[in-house]
Amino acid sequence: MTTNFYAPPAQIRGSRVVLPDDEARHVRSVLRAETGDEIVVVDGEGGWHRVRLDHVAAGQVVGHILDTRREVGEPAVAMTVGLGLLTTRSRLETFVEKAVELGVRRIVPLRTRHTEPTSVRADRLRRVMVAALKQCRRSRLPDLAAPQSLDDLLEATTADVRVLCHGGDHPPLPDALQGPAPDDVLALVGPEGGFAPDEVAAAREAGCTPVSLGTRRLRAETAGLAAINAVMLRGQSRRAP
Amino acid sequence: MTTNFYAPPAQIRGSRVVLPDDEARHVRSVLRAETGDEIVVVDGEGGWHRVRLDHVAAGQVVGHILDTRREVGEPAVAMTVGLGLLTTRSRLETFVEKAVELGVRRIVPLRTRHTEPTSVRADRLRRVMVAALKQCRRSRLPDLAAPQSLDDLLEATTADVRVLCHGGDHPPLPDALQGPAPDDVLALVGPEGGFAPDEVAAAREAGCTPVSLGTRRLRAETAGLAAINAVMLRGQSRRAP
Repeated sequence: MTTNFYAPPAQIRGSRVVLPDDEARHVRSVLRAETGDEIVVVDGEGGWHRVRLDHVAAGQVVGHILDTRREVGEPAVAMTVGLGLLTTRSRLETFVEKAVELGVRRIVPLRTRHTEPTSVRADRLRRVMVAALKQCRRSRLPDLAAPQSLDDLLEATTADVRVLCHGGDHPPLPDALQGPAPDDVLALVGPEGGFAPDEVAAAREAGCTPVSLGTRRLRAETAGLAAINAVMLRGQSRRAP
Repeated sequence: MTTNFYAPPAQIRGSRVVLPDDEARHVRSVLRAETGDEIVVVDGEGGWHRVRLDHVAAGQVVGHILDTRREVGEPAVAMTVGLGLLTTRSRLETFVEKAVELGVRRIVPLRTRHTEPTSVRADRLRRVMVAALKQCRRSRLPDLAAPQSLDDLLEATTADVRVLCHGGDHPPLPDALQGPAPDDVLALVGPEGGFAPDEVAAAREAGCTPVSLGTRRLRAETAGLAAINAVMLRGQSRRAP
């Protein structure tokens, strides 16, 4: 068994699981599974199910749940990354794939003063995210928010730790993570041209601490991934304070 | 000024810098620089030079060094990543780009039991690395070793901290970085299928500590980037032990 399968809660009634069409195709053509085989199905909302296949046919794959666990592969911290929309779409795809693997909870593409694109290919990004969800064996599909302004994100956030990844001489991100383990972290990462001064001011006003990710200038998507990794490592180290 | 330029030491004699052809084109066509302008030139071996342009013509861009600094943008730790050769070449390109940004010193593509490719497109990877070097404003171009066996790498390494990124129940990577700051770190990351048992045994025999990068199963290139980031954060945190 090398990958998990994905079936949103609507496909699960009691202990009966009906795989979505594309997952059913995968079970048949790639996995070549048969009736009686076991697979793992995650529902993208924290449910992780060991499933025995009862029916494997061209149009339909159905199974029943043998046992269920919650939050498999999920970090304790809920992390949101607000990332300036990237001009090169493949870079955003690389970001969302690896952000899912690294444990992000929510991705918010930001329209900022220095971003040119105003939209994302949401269907395509969602497919990348579902593939990463299955591959990395977590059980929650992170949210992909609609592109929005920084103000909208700052208005809505409930994060208890808020950082603005800004480079320069600011304290390193790990310093902002000292103290009690945060439940909910927001990291803001500017687009290629960085945040504009009034955006930086608004973020600071909303309680975001400017932090550095090191002495090298990271591309926006690299900075986002480095920030996620830093937050997850904070939770992971046994000797963290 | 938004990017550095690259001229290897052979292009620099005393204070005179002759830009390589592709860099000269960039100065003229993208930057649209003129005689008298200042640019930053890095030599890829730790040299960082502020340069005034004396001559900007179709075939040649020449300048003289105003001042020189050493090791700008370079971390104190020399980190080597041995990464199983990846089947999808674009994933290796993503890895080398971001590995340069994050501060790696040396990349060693590994031929392992579970890798199919035996070669890399070294010229192409080197171009990606030079572009990242300039973009992220570091001064050393990391080494890209020829593909080799794990045994060859283990034989040659002089690292004082050696880790095998192996997932599962091993201690988290940050735990292996406690204590005095390491000078030279080797991280091994398996290919898609992981290292074979005899490869794991050889690595352990050579002093590599198995470590985990978290509870999710990371793609090989993501694992390599997470390992680099963890090592760089170790050096970056002001309160690190």
